[in-house]
Amino acid sequence: MQRLNSTDQAFSSQLQSLLAFETAQNPAVDATVAAILADVKQRGDAAVLEYTQRFDGVAAASMAELTLSPATLQAAYQRLPAAQREALEAAAARVRRYHERQVQPAWQYREDDGTVLGQAITPLDRVGLYVPGGKASYPSSVLMNAIPAKVAGVGEIILVVPTPRGERNDLVLAAAHIAGVDRVITIGGAQAVAALAYGTATIPQVDKITGPGNQYVAAAKRAVFGLVGIDMVAGPSEILIICDGGTDPDWIAMDLFSQAEHDEIAQSILLCPDAEYLERVAASIARLLPEMPRRDIIAASLANRGALIQVRDLAEACQLANQIAPEHLELSVADPWPLQAAIRHAGAIFLGRYASEALGDYCAGPNHVLPTSRTARFASPLGVYDFQKRSSLIYVSQAGAQSLGRIATTLAQGEGLPAHALSAAYRLEENQ
Amino acid sequence: MQRLNSTDQAFSSQLQSLLAFETAQNPAVDATVAAILADVKQRGDAAVLEYTQRFDGVAAASMAELTLSPATLQAAYQRLPAAQREALEAAAARVRRYHERQVQPAWQYREDDGTVLGQAITPLDRVGLYVPGGKASYPSSVLMNAIPAKVAGVGEIILVVPTPRGERNDLVLAAAHIAGVDRVITIGGAQAVAALAYGTATIPQVDKITGPGNQYVAAAKRAVFGLVGIDMVAGPSEILIICDGGTDPDWIAMDLFSQAEHDEIAQSILLCPDAEYLERVAASIARLLPEMPRRDIIAASLANRGALIQVRDLAEACQLANQIAPEHLELSVADPWPLQAAIRHAGAIFLGRYASEALGDYCAGPNHVLPTSRTARFASPLGVYDFQKRSSLIYVSQAGAQSLGRIATTLAQGEGLPAHALSAAYRLEENQ
Repeated sequence: MQRLNSTDQAFSSQLQSLLAFETAQNPAVDATVAAILADVKQRGDAAVLEYTQRFDGVAAASMAELTLSPATLQAAYQRLPAAQREALEAAAARVRRYHERQVQPAWQYREDDGTVLGQAITPLDRVGLYVPGGKASYPSSVLMNAIPAKVAGVGEIILVVPTPRGERNDLVLAAAHIAGVDRVITIGGAQAVAALAYGTATIPQVDKITGPGNQYVAAAKRAVFGLVGIDMVAGPSEILIICDGGTDPDWIAMDLFSQAEHDEIAQSILLCPDAEYLERVAASIARLLPEMPRRDIIAASLANRGALIQVRDLAEACQLANQIAPEHLELSVADPWPLQAAIRHAGAIFLGRYASEALGDYCAGPNHVLPTSRTARFASPLGVYDFQKRSSLIYVSQAGAQSLGRIATTLAQGEGLPAHALSAAYRLEENQ
Repeated sequence: MQRLNSTDQAFSSQLQSLLAFETAQNPAVDATVAAILADVKQRGDAAVLEYTQRFDGVAAASMAELTLSPATLQAAYQRLPAAQREALEAAAARVRRYHERQVQPAWQYREDDGTVLGQAITPLDRVGLYVPGGKASYPSSVLMNAIPAKVAGVGEIILVVPTPRGERNDLVLAAAHIAGVDRVITIGGAQAVAALAYGTATIPQVDKITGPGNQYVAAAKRAVFGLVGIDMVAGPSEILIICDGGTDPDWIAMDLFSQAEHDEIAQSILLCPDAEYLERVAASIARLLPEMPRRDIIAASLANRGALIQVRDLAEACQLANQIAPEHLELSVADPWPLQAAIRHAGAIFLGRYASEALGDYCAGPNHVLPTSRTARFASPLGVYDFQKRSSLIYVSQAGAQSLGRIATTLAQGEGLPAHALSAAYRLEENQ
């Protein structure tokens, strides 16, 4: 694991290479995906079925066999151990409560001449949620995608999840049941994205596709963007921890591990002004790592992309955080709020020594789908606002058409658009 | 211009071909753009300068010559005829007032155990606005892009506008002055997008790029999406008018023209239950078209993509509007509000006989950058929310870490992520 010091002359370039991550698209993947998209667009269900048989090793003879009934979801829910069922329910309730605060009201205002301007808010009709299958099959992702859509008032939520060799994950199906998913189809990959984007005989076209996936899914989402909406194309997951040296170093080590255990390209960085504390965290890492079930992944991730960085002070740590714009930021300090005020760019900010990222991943309430790879500079957590859209409302009174019409005709003439000018001028009293 | 009737058996497929528009990316354009992007990424200002000399015929020897000072913008503003200056100022004031309503407050709530959850709102640090040059150079687009960014609190607004053969548009520069643009650089095309996305020695990297452009600009924006944010990739402009037959047919004809005059692929459609009224509009079109300065473009647009459609009733018209999800929707009827309540998908809704789209294009207040090509199903008008982003706030109290920790450990174990489970479990009292 790299050890850096912000006072080193080479620090700026060291930090840059630490953060560098090649997100270039892979032409071979793009070509494969383009062929699958075209095929599903052309042949619909037949193509989806063939790809599912081939890639997932699922011997289904029809789309109906790949579609799970509400009773199937409920049965999965009932089969869960009580502790898991209750934990899922408790997490869902908290996620729902937080997201209900994100609902935005429509508004209007009336001007003196009777003109009314406003903004309507409408939920999307139908969305598709992609949930990865196999080893990285996460019920928490089902909750985090489906609940905001449900709170937004989306008419129909279709969840796709591949089931390699027919393996279904009860936790995922139970989460779909709890979150109020309308339909679960056990398909995945670019073929699932294509089916949702174009529609088939059995799968209706959706308006937006959200949720994480492998590089084929990401490439497919990017390709259909415009025809349907998509959430961000996610990069590797990241955590940045700012610590004042007062948190149990084992806690910080485990928080770094919790990010690193996702995969070898996940990024875990600690910033602290106290050199001696960084040594204690390094010692915790060395002591705890061998006990971790996913130690190989963690070790690779920390070696490839992790760092313990000594900074001048907490103010500099906040500046670096704004430069890094991390997906997850822990402010593990005695008084986190003044630091929070200095943070401009981060997906989620965890405040105080007790706020470990894992609590946010599962059940604190805010969404765990967050902007990665510095996109927190311009992007937001997944939220209710991603499942609603706005329409401008423009009611113009006869009096309003007089004042507005004069401005519009002047500007339209200036832009060389005479029909625009006449369309406004026709409504002027002197022309009637 | 096509004449359709919703009671015809072939109507559904007729409508589908009317709306069809091939938005497929052009591989040749993509390849050209990829080469320009790579070159600017590699060589920076030198490449930008060369492309600007070659494509725009501008004989500048340095980037400094392509950068306009605030004094230059102010001089352009001063040079304008008073009527244009006042119209721009009046439009800007109205656009500003509307967009100020879109500012969203941050919020927080505290739970009984002291845990605090919230959502912070932060403006983007720096954005780039692309404004086309030459014949389609629109000062109104400058206002519509720059004012929401300014209201959002964006730190720096950089406007790029190509000036083919050095021709500068005073209205565009004056609009930049009024809107508070920080810097204007007279470059365009894929090279301008590249400079904003990667940064050069003289142009700082931005966080988001908005604004319309030709197919090279659109392809470049699509390619850099992810590294920086972008607004939607816009398709041809569209208007859908629902009329009850009570509006002066000349007004409706001119509203259709005002969309059609943009370009040959713009789309203008009228829905009305009254066959006789459709005849009167057709007569108005026939009578007014020869007088229009842009009659060739209008005629081509109406012939290619326009239609007068007789519908059963206004309720069916609203259903069709939801299916079409138009960029602009005029409800030119006696009582538009009940119809508005039935509309789920439209970028901007113009209500009443006096609300011509042209008023919204320039000065009503709402944004004229709107979702095209059915993307109003999931996308919104450009707004203040496009220039701000959210960060989740998660402060967990010691007591909160107990209840949340139990949920998180259960779910993390269920997902096979033991470091997540331990990170939560470390904060439990029984483990301290």
